[in-house]
Amino acid sequence: MKSNSKIIKSTEQGWDGVEPKKYKTEGSNFKSISRYSLLDGETSELNSHTRYFEIEPDGYSSLEMHRHPHSVVVLKGSGSVILDDQISVISTHDVIYIAPETIHQFQADRGELLGFLCIVDRYRDKPVIPSDDFIHANIHSDKVLKKIKK
Amino acid sequence: MKSNSKIIKSTEQGWDGVEPKKYKTEGSNFKSISRYSLLDGETSELNSHTRYFEIEPDGYSSLEMHRHPHSVVVLKGSGSVILDDQISVISTHDVIYIAPETIHQFQADRGELLGFLCIVDRYRDKPVIPSDDFIHANIHSDKVLKKIKK
Repeated sequence: MKSNSKIIKSTEQGWDGVEPKKYKTEGSNFKSISRYSLLDGETSELNSHTRYFEIEPDGYSSLEMHRHPHSVVVLKGSGSVILDDQISVISTHDVIYIAPETIHQFQADRGELLGFLCIVDRYRDKPVIPSDDFIHANIHSDKVLKKIKK
Repeated sequence: MKSNSKIIKSTEQGWDGVEPKKYKTEGSNFKSISRYSLLDGETSELNSHTRYFEIEPDGYSSLEMHRHPHSVVVLKGSGSVILDDQISVISTHDVIYIAPETIHQFQADRGELLGFLCIVDRYRDKPVIPSDDFIHANIHSDKVLKKIKK
């Protein structure tokens, strides 16, 4: 086959030859989350990158926002997602579209892991951590404000 | 939440509010395959589109090639994929990168359905059906040549 085509086999732990990496190299506003780069910059023909994130029970991704959108598909388990002033339960195979500038956070808050694909543009802006003032100006739901992890 | 953000819930049959569509509107070089547009052109911020294809047992996608690459993640079942002169078994959660101009075909040839996500650039070239001459000039494996469905 053409040299660049490839199959990455799923294993019990993750994917063959794909090492889980740190979720982020800086910050501490996340917990028990790993990143797997499945199809990314090594494959220069791709304009979108496919990553997999796995959050252990009680873990969460950073509360953040950015201009680039996210296409998310839950692969394993369940949890919750905050999208501005709404929080929703998400389960295996649910699809989430996160529009530009949406304040968002994933939480494995249902006693099991939450694993999801997240597809992004290859060239994208850096996430921004919203300030407390910004959060309170944009999120009016007490339920969501209480659920946010920082 | 921002008006465009959304959650598409998974159901037993597929996804809430997502009607399975015809795989292609023309041609007959495919069998028992449905297309689900999960995140696509309706969401204008997206530069990549996330589609789900489900092939019933004994069905197959069209043998084709194009310049745009495919990022594929198997969601359900198992089957086989032809990538130029190789054929490989693929199962749930396997990841397949199909490089530009690779002759490829998915087959549900293992007695169960094969369901997979396929992520593509929003703006992309139209697939080409390789001629018999082209197939024989590029695929030298008898095993693959025998497996191709047209």
